[in-house]
Amino acid sequence: MTIRVGIFGYGNLGRGVESAIRQNPDMKLAAVFTRRDPSTLKIKTEGVPVLNIADAEKMVNDIDVMILCGGSATDLPTQTPETVKLFNVIDSFDTHAKIPEHFDAVDTEAKKSGKVGIISVGWDPGMFSLNRLYGGAILSEGKDYTFWGKGVSQGHSDAIRRVEGVIDAKQYTIPVDEALEAVRSGAEPELTTRQKHLRECFVVAKDGADKAKIEKEIKEMPNYFADYDTTVHFITKEELDRDHSGIPHGGFVIRSGKTGFNKEHNHIIEYSLKLDSNPEFTASVLVAYARAAYRLSLDGVSGCKTVLDIPPAYLSAKSGKELRKELL
Amino acid sequence: MTIRVGIFGYGNLGRGVESAIRQNPDMKLAAVFTRRDPSTLKIKTEGVPVLNIADAEKMVNDIDVMILCGGSATDLPTQTPETVKLFNVIDSFDTHAKIPEHFDAVDTEAKKSGKVGIISVGWDPGMFSLNRLYGGAILSEGKDYTFWGKGVSQGHSDAIRRVEGVIDAKQYTIPVDEALEAVRSGAEPELTTRQKHLRECFVVAKDGADKAKIEKEIKEMPNYFADYDTTVHFITKEELDRDHSGIPHGGFVIRSGKTGFNKEHNHIIEYSLKLDSNPEFTASVLVAYARAAYRLSLDGVSGCKTVLDIPPAYLSAKSGKELRKELL
Repeated sequence: MTIRVGIFGYGNLGRGVESAIRQNPDMKLAAVFTRRDPSTLKIKTEGVPVLNIADAEKMVNDIDVMILCGGSATDLPTQTPETVKLFNVIDSFDTHAKIPEHFDAVDTEAKKSGKVGIISVGWDPGMFSLNRLYGGAILSEGKDYTFWGKGVSQGHSDAIRRVEGVIDAKQYTIPVDEALEAVRSGAEPELTTRQKHLRECFVVAKDGADKAKIEKEIKEMPNYFADYDTTVHFITKEELDRDHSGIPHGGFVIRSGKTGFNKEHNHIIEYSLKLDSNPEFTASVLVAYARAAYRLSLDGVSGCKTVLDIPPAYLSAKSGKELRKELL
Repeated sequence: MTIRVGIFGYGNLGRGVESAIRQNPDMKLAAVFTRRDPSTLKIKTEGVPVLNIADAEKMVNDIDVMILCGGSATDLPTQTPETVKLFNVIDSFDTHAKIPEHFDAVDTEAKKSGKVGIISVGWDPGMFSLNRLYGGAILSEGKDYTFWGKGVSQGHSDAIRRVEGVIDAKQYTIPVDEALEAVRSGAEPELTTRQKHLRECFVVAKDGADKAKIEKEIKEMPNYFADYDTTVHFITKEELDRDHSGIPHGGFVIRSGKTGFNKEHNHIIEYSLKLDSNPEFTASVLVAYARAAYRLSLDGVSGCKTVLDIPPAYLSAKSGKELRKELL
């Protein structure tokens, strides 16, 4: 049976989900929902309706799982609890500090409606969280490290664009090689913010702008840059569009721990991602968890779940028997 | 409530489990079982009984989970189905080709007894299997790579010891750097056995033995060495004991895949282990899954399971609430 997926929100993430569904023969796109006038939206999949979200209720029998592709700041805190009243849902809510509150809100509505909501799906939170969990459960005495990058930080790029005299900008977060090597050595170092990551900025300035002033303002910006070693490169708009239009990202989760009656043995567990497209990879994770939500729902499960709760086999299109034979 | 763990078999793996239990405050060692005369066995934990396996039945009310620490060739195929008649069990059965058959045997008995048996726990099968599953579920179009090492292969070391003129030997399996780099590039190369791993041997020969003949015999040994680039070093027994007494291991699971409407974006997911002690790390994984078996059993679950079936949160001593707050 084909899993019928709905997409709510058609930005980079929504388009990534549309593309990922095509790579999974057990799924099909059932509809795309928007808060705008649907006639203004042209999607890539032929014959699939684009509907206003107000019409979602008419589609309850045509959609098995709805993937919410809005933002964590203002969209998901209300959209996920609202949508789970009608559908099994997946979201990528990534405001770490507010996850417990979001979980409770979704859980309450999901239990009332008898639906499943899997929240905070993606890679951090998501696959990185899973690796922090597995690493800590296995090496119970040890230390966790998370590094991000090399990749584009949307928030930091936006912060640079707000500096006077800046037309456009792209910021890369880069893990410091020496810090990674120190962690991999098993030494369990204490690392400062500055020791862990560099920030590299590519900035297009207005004609005649005071570049020295812009650079100083970026480097001293509190929270965003002041605690980091930051490099600023001024380039042309053409160079920015040619060389920095991608949305790569990635990172590392490392667990360093000790075992033995005298803690004499070191172990390093390392998980890393190198992603050409952050939204398309996140979308691929969302689609795998949509499969899990569908199956949990068939099992009669309801309520809010996270990646930490989902049996791994539920993500795969293969049967338990195939998985044991081919992958175990 | 403390989880009471039994150990069956007290070799390197059993001692590793004993040590790992000390690192987990929610667990305690309840008894060690052996097929030998218990009076010949001295364990490291004071006040814990050593019993003959024939007396296991008397301990059914004192042990929540039994961890089986025997070998896959001859012990576990009978021990796991036998033991699950009385206890929840964990084993590290690692004969990949026979896992389906072992699963069925354990499942039949576990369903009859109402117990949980989690089989093939460790790192390969085990954590590597999990990473093959997650990687393939997320990047559904792509290729899997598994590399082992650098680490000691017991089977290959044993094979060398059977060569005439050899007193002792240690064999290291080493992944080829160029192959790893080719995989990490996203090129999805086809790699031969020889291109993936090197074999390095440290050999203690008898006085006056024909070293050239020994080296030739090792390098040409079918299945074990003939398909690899193999290096043989002759060293003294003292050097072997001083420099090669450890049991390090590790390896890499890499998923390389593509996304996008035109498959224009590459992604690399890499999981790696660098282990000072193969048996102690495996033991740490077994102990984490013992926690999961105990919880599944409290949930009323019975039957055979593998790492692919277990919700990750079941491995951790922390509550769902703590995990969402601290790790997600």
